[in-house]
Amino acid sequence: MPRVIKHPDIRRQELLDIAARSFAEHGYDSTTVDDVIRQAGLSKGAFYYYYPSKQALLEGLATAAATRALEALQPVMNASGLGAVDRLNAFLRQGRQTHDAAATLAVFESIFRPDNVVLYHRMHAAVMAVMLPPLTEILAQGVAEGSIRSNDPRTTAELVLMLGTMTHDVVGRLLGAKPQEWAAAIAAFEHRLVEQGIAVDRILGLPDGTVAFVEPGFAEAMFASRRP
Amino acid sequence: MPRVIKHPDIRRQELLDIAARSFAEHGYDSTTVDDVIRQAGLSKGAFYYYYPSKQALLEGLATAAATRALEALQPVMNASGLGAVDRLNAFLRQGRQTHDAAATLAVFESIFRPDNVVLYHRMHAAVMAVMLPPLTEILAQGVAEGSIRSNDPRTTAELVLMLGTMTHDVVGRLLGAKPQEWAAAIAAFEHRLVEQGIAVDRILGLPDGTVAFVEPGFAEAMFASRRP
Repeated sequence: MPRVIKHPDIRRQELLDIAARSFAEHGYDSTTVDDVIRQAGLSKGAFYYYYPSKQALLEGLATAAATRALEALQPVMNASGLGAVDRLNAFLRQGRQTHDAAATLAVFESIFRPDNVVLYHRMHAAVMAVMLPPLTEILAQGVAEGSIRSNDPRTTAELVLMLGTMTHDVVGRLLGAKPQEWAAAIAAFEHRLVEQGIAVDRILGLPDGTVAFVEPGFAEAMFASRRP
Repeated sequence: MPRVIKHPDIRRQELLDIAARSFAEHGYDSTTVDDVIRQAGLSKGAFYYYYPSKQALLEGLATAAATRALEALQPVMNASGLGAVDRLNAFLRQGRQTHDAAATLAVFESIFRPDNVVLYHRMHAAVMAVMLPPLTEILAQGVAEGSIRSNDPRTTAELVLMLGTMTHDVVGRLLGAKPQEWAAAIAAFEHRLVEQGIAVDRILGLPDGTVAFVEPGFAEAMFASRRP
């Protein structure tokens, strides 16, 4: 059977689109690689050339989402005369926006199940790889300006991104919450983000409350579609 | 065949001892659950009653090592008149001692392989569960004394322990280093620990360099048996 030859980048994007749709509709766990292959009209060999596993598809989606978030941030990153702390807050705000759509949540939800912890860490690593260079740049600018304290902006950037894994357990509990547990689970998630923001402030030598990891109502809005 | 009935705690300890010996001699990956069962003279059913998997054995070893470290720390934890910062440094020093024997390293080495990342996080969670209550207590003492800044000692303790995962990648690179990469890998590991210590100092409102995650020569000594 003759197969359509497409540019690898186009094919890769097509497979990610199919995977995103399937994960959102049926969940990550219920989607099989065969489902994706069938919808793409590809041979198994061709599929595995692009993505060696279902995990790799999810990782690809995470990288794509992080890359899109970063592209949306370019005007702020390139704006002249903007201080490092303002850039940092814009950077973190963008990170929140990527995550707040119900569709994104549906795609990524199953990574918060305890037996999928390896997926979670692979995805976190994929997002970190995209976010590390621009965050390093922001911190280096802050050091040059004298607004941020760091001996080594790259290691500090890694530490700051690593703290993001702190929310894994509270998000997991939130997604499994019963109706009567919901308010407490939302409060626990917000509290965790506030403490994470303060930890980042202190690591960077900024006054408590400078870095905003969370705004009032953010947690409710982000998880509105999962409210039991 | 009549089987010896032993107290569950004794049986559990016996299985951990066999597992520790096998992991150290043959490596975690080359040891099978059947090896452990055969050496213990147990039925499969009895084994799985105690430990549902090989991963659970490794987790049990991590919990046991953390518990022993904590017991060794009791004199310091109970000493009257000792300040929170001194207690904190004793706590961290004890954490390092658990890890520096070649035997411990042999048991836990394979968790640093990229395909064993889930094992690493399970072990880290097991150690965190043991370490969280005493660290929370130390931080609460510091807040009461006015020597440590924290709005919520328990969450801060979790953040501090979470930063421990920062060394995963540098340790992984160190264990896979070729002879000509060794010095750089050791330096990268030490640098990471220094930055991690400074991050903890700042989170706790202490001057940089107060908390010692590493001493000169520590990395070389810890990994002496792995030097290629």
